[in-house]
Amino acid sequence: MNHYCGKCRTAIRSERELILFSLSKRSDVEPFHAMDVLAEATLRRQAGYPVISMAVGQPSHPAPQAALEAARAALGHGRIGYTDALGTLTLRQALSAHYQTRHGLSVDPKRIAITTGSSAGFNLAFLTLFDAGDSVAIGRPGYPAYRNILAALGLDVLEVPVTEETQFTLTPESLEAAQAESGKRLKGVLLASPANPTGTVTGRAALKALADYCADRSIAFISDEIYHGLTFVGEETSALELTDEAIVINSFSKYYCMTGWRVGWMVLPERLVRPIERVAQSLYISAPELSQIAAEAALGAGAELDVYRESYGRNRDFLMRRLPEIGFRIASPMDGAFYAYVDVSRFTNDSMIFARKMLAEINVAATPGLDFDPDDGHRAMRISYAGSNAEIEEAVERMAAWLK
Amino acid sequence: MNHYCGKCRTAIRSERELILFSLSKRSDVEPFHAMDVLAEATLRRQAGYPVISMAVGQPSHPAPQAALEAARAALGHGRIGYTDALGTLTLRQALSAHYQTRHGLSVDPKRIAITTGSSAGFNLAFLTLFDAGDSVAIGRPGYPAYRNILAALGLDVLEVPVTEETQFTLTPESLEAAQAESGKRLKGVLLASPANPTGTVTGRAALKALADYCADRSIAFISDEIYHGLTFVGEETSALELTDEAIVINSFSKYYCMTGWRVGWMVLPERLVRPIERVAQSLYISAPELSQIAAEAALGAGAELDVYRESYGRNRDFLMRRLPEIGFRIASPMDGAFYAYVDVSRFTNDSMIFARKMLAEINVAATPGLDFDPDDGHRAMRISYAGSNAEIEEAVERMAAWLK
Repeated sequence: MNHYCGKCRTAIRSERELILFSLSKRSDVEPFHAMDVLAEATLRRQAGYPVISMAVGQPSHPAPQAALEAARAALGHGRIGYTDALGTLTLRQALSAHYQTRHGLSVDPKRIAITTGSSAGFNLAFLTLFDAGDSVAIGRPGYPAYRNILAALGLDVLEVPVTEETQFTLTPESLEAAQAESGKRLKGVLLASPANPTGTVTGRAALKALADYCADRSIAFISDEIYHGLTFVGEETSALELTDEAIVINSFSKYYCMTGWRVGWMVLPERLVRPIERVAQSLYISAPELSQIAAEAALGAGAELDVYRESYGRNRDFLMRRLPEIGFRIASPMDGAFYAYVDVSRFTNDSMIFARKMLAEINVAATPGLDFDPDDGHRAMRISYAGSNAEIEEAVERMAAWLK
Repeated sequence: MNHYCGKCRTAIRSERELILFSLSKRSDVEPFHAMDVLAEATLRRQAGYPVISMAVGQPSHPAPQAALEAARAALGHGRIGYTDALGTLTLRQALSAHYQTRHGLSVDPKRIAITTGSSAGFNLAFLTLFDAGDSVAIGRPGYPAYRNILAALGLDVLEVPVTEETQFTLTPESLEAAQAESGKRLKGVLLASPANPTGTVTGRAALKALADYCADRSIAFISDEIYHGLTFVGEETSALELTDEAIVINSFSKYYCMTGWRVGWMVLPERLVRPIERVAQSLYISAPELSQIAAEAALGAGAELDVYRESYGRNRDFLMRRLPEIGFRIASPMDGAFYAYVDVSRFTNDSMIFARKMLAEINVAATPGLDFDPDDGHRAMRISYAGSNAEIEEAVERMAAWLK
């Protein structure tokens, strides 16, 4: 008896042909729901709806003028090519100078690696530090890409609750408790300060306690400093002020308003530089050259960027007042970054459906809490306030009317 | 007795402090020597030496005028932001139209994923298709990043020799033999045509045989088509003409002269689109927006790009004549891409030292064969001929004088 393909009617020579190749188990990661919401919002906007997106963590402002001008000039100067895998020397030097000015720290440019956004920084750090099966602690709620990248690389993710009790950050005590409970020994700890989505700013003493805890136990300490420059309350400390052993990850996406340029950096302990370079050569070749040129110019644009920062500050004040009024309890500090993480349990027990409905009915996009917290995120939402004041106010008023 | 740190004299509280966190085993990949040579060449150029680099596979030409203009215009139009994880709809549509025009194929834009260079395409394909320990076949000699990314992801690399006997490509027979010899069962096969560094163009019939072989055995078939547009001899076939089940990887880096822009694409079987999107959301967020805008314009710049292609053709003719004269035997076809892979055993048994010496003494950079072939590459070099005619001729004349 002959078999035929059900779709195109080709004769099937053997039953084996019916078996398509399979996908990997590790690709079965959760979607980054914020990106799904972004895709849906893009479709609606293209269809002519007046969408306001507070779903994705990106400033509505363009890159600083100096960055745009540097890019424009470079477009006229011939080829945009590969750079060295660790980035252009001048950008690495400019970042070294930045640490001197901003933190009073002397950081050898050789310890600085330019990456294709902080996304590449995480991937490179995880690949270079950890083997499959190793355990790495992150806070919950926290940035979902941590969890997803770790899982895709075969690492064991230890999600440690960050709650009012722990001042919404990781502490030596919470790490001890999580290890005792799970029976796991940590190989790495990753902390963001300011943090996404909680807004927590981990102060100098608390950060030092964590770095020491890791150093005493040969645990790699990864400090995500992507929201530096966006601290509204508390002290902004770089892990580099405390230790040369931290792996610092940063980016031009947030404070510098350069999300779509995909450029960031790492500061590494000396002995990690060459291993990171080796992996980066094959996995990334180099970060985009034009973005590196623009980023260098952006480092000098503090005055312009601080104006944007003040605008986020106004959004923050507005949201801290208005969100509770419309029934969203603010669930964590909002001391830094540009997010409000809110409890929406008064309205729903499924933040995913809630987010879809809100987008469909009032064209306001925000991110379901499930991205950040697989356990309790079904009753939380994250609202990014990196948009303009007018947008944020308009969005909240739409929400207020809709929630009634 | 107290201990003190040998470097900074801090008191050591316990011996544990002396133990620093360790690196992963999987980060112990080979360097991409071409990138190391690039870094060294950059340093020498900055020091004022008249370096000619034929080490890295990148055109010396800038991106097409239309691409530069589109980028310039976009810089004035507000924020360069994240796009959807799979890329802008308009670029995906433009690529779909490109397959219609160039190959007479109807490819749904939804099956096209925009990536941060082909580098991201490989990483996404490997992560989504294979779990740690799975075996994937690549040709040897071949592009080193295949081997290094596969190894970093915990995959087993089956290097299958591509020799005169196999017409310098992978064949069902050579794959069978390699599996029999190693006792491994393949989960994936990756072939580039035109190939780096061999220049092999795998014809339609041979490509079809390979795709069928994979389909019959539920093996994923990855077709690297990054050198399409640069075939000088033979027929240029896309795997998409033969099957909907191939994973096609391509990029704007080579024919389109946009290396440093870091933008490429994949064409996927429908059922792979969402898994790839999920992994891409977390690992890359999106490809650089400005590069996506420029790439769309580049698709229409065939006339300009074909002039560059003709210039590579002149380099190719020149090298095919001149390299044997100076003592470099051409070791493989040179039918496509822009590389000459040459046997340098008349001069050295260590192509790495040979490459360093050549750069130091005559300021000519080329890539040691070890990048492409861990077994026999010590007596081979790869020469990229994507530079200008004048550069290539000058470089070869320096080499001729030096080798005497």
